[in-house]
Amino acid sequence: MNTGELYVVGLGPGHPDLLAPRARTVLAAADVVVGYRGYLALLDPWLPLRGVVATELTREVERAVIAVDRAWQGERVAVVSSGDAGVYGMAGLVLEVLAARNWDPEQGPTVEVVPGITAITAAAAVVGAPLMHDFAVVSLSDRLTPWPVIHRRLEAAAQADFVIGLYNPRSARRTAPLEAARRILLAFRRPDTPVAVVRNAYRPGQAVRLCTLETFVPEEVDMFTTVIVGNTSTRVYRGRLVTPRGYRVDAKAPQAP
Amino acid sequence: MNTGELYVVGLGPGHPDLLAPRARTVLAAADVVVGYRGYLALLDPWLPLRGVVATELTREVERAVIAVDRAWQGERVAVVSSGDAGVYGMAGLVLEVLAARNWDPEQGPTVEVVPGITAITAAAAVVGAPLMHDFAVVSLSDRLTPWPVIHRRLEAAAQADFVIGLYNPRSARRTAPLEAARRILLAFRRPDTPVAVVRNAYRPGQAVRLCTLETFVPEEVDMFTTVIVGNTSTRVYRGRLVTPRGYRVDAKAPQAP
Repeated sequence: MNTGELYVVGLGPGHPDLLAPRARTVLAAADVVVGYRGYLALLDPWLPLRGVVATELTREVERAVIAVDRAWQGERVAVVSSGDAGVYGMAGLVLEVLAARNWDPEQGPTVEVVPGITAITAAAAVVGAPLMHDFAVVSLSDRLTPWPVIHRRLEAAAQADFVIGLYNPRSARRTAPLEAARRILLAFRRPDTPVAVVRNAYRPGQAVRLCTLETFVPEEVDMFTTVIVGNTSTRVYRGRLVTPRGYRVDAKAPQAP
Repeated sequence: MNTGELYVVGLGPGHPDLLAPRARTVLAAADVVVGYRGYLALLDPWLPLRGVVATELTREVERAVIAVDRAWQGERVAVVSSGDAGVYGMAGLVLEVLAARNWDPEQGPTVEVVPGITAITAAAAVVGAPLMHDFAVVSLSDRLTPWPVIHRRLEAAAQADFVIGLYNPRSARRTAPLEAARRILLAFRRPDTPVAVVRNAYRPGQAVRLCTLETFVPEEVDMFTTVIVGNTSTRVYRGRLVTPRGYRVDAKAPQAP
């Protein structure tokens, strides 16, 4: 039995006011915090860390291995993702590395996934309430997922009238999937379907653009952006995106004073 | 111009360690907090509130109207939902009531949606990392949504191999949809597809059951439960559910010390 502890922690959007106390406690107490340089920078300087291993964006496997190694050696280790670590984040990879080493919870380090506010709900809060009805989350990154799988999911989500959240919508090199996604969605949704483009939600430089599937400009989107495409009921009220859930509001609501 | 303030606040799972500081600040400062009795009870006694309007579960429209009224009269009002207020929560309804009254952000109360940790990511963290790939969230409540719409979404999500999260899966009176959902999913997924049944995530009495589409027992599910159904890659490792994202882990991971 060793006493190592391994935490996989979602930072939420990156603003101190939206970081869960549990995450804050775990990060402050960790011997070492392992993460992508850009996410660790979100914590600076408001959350002092005792030790840090910062690597580049695509080094996820390396980060998971370092974290598991050091926890196995008895350290208290936190691995961070932005948003929720369980949504396209480090939680799965850490568990896969543990499994590859025949981790036994009775013997190896303890493991805890600390949830956070994930990008789509943060973006939704910034623009109103687009997720009041069933929604599908699709990553447009074809780095690990073949494009036909992504295509099929976009088509299914569009066909069944899900609100759709796009993660990893576009990077400097990976520009084709977002325009392809727009065309797939346009085959099933009206051109005036509302679209919210939310960049740097709750971070410095936050920017929101409400547009439609037709007027949407993929070039305005980067890796710090979440895109939300409404379903057939989604409307814009006074600059806020709302997907009605079906309550009878107009009939019941008394007049404003 | 009046000075009323209206906040729609997600409480997260209900544990103080998972409530965002922003939510805590807003709730503590509110003249009145409006919510379902059961959710307000989650805050007691660790978060003292200055004023409370507690109503029963199905009184959502009434709560939204009370909140908008009081904010319009100049009070500082918070409306709460469990999880994230923007995911099947009060945020949309509050905005709909505002719209029905021709709310003008320049004139009426200020409005802020404060995001929280939504049920599916909380449940996912408790059971491991099932949301590492594209997922669809479907509410099984047919109170406001016709069953054929729900059916079509379940079918599309199953067909396109989404991980699927079921909200409002089953109540004392509404028992048929969950068994129907299980049958729809079984038409597209193997009987041994992993299923996580998470009850009262991060609350007293938290209970987790890992089973499969075949062994799953709908009778164990109630309104405090979130159900997560894996995609075709989802596996169970040492009691944790993991949906691999496609990284090559085995080849790269060095041996454990």
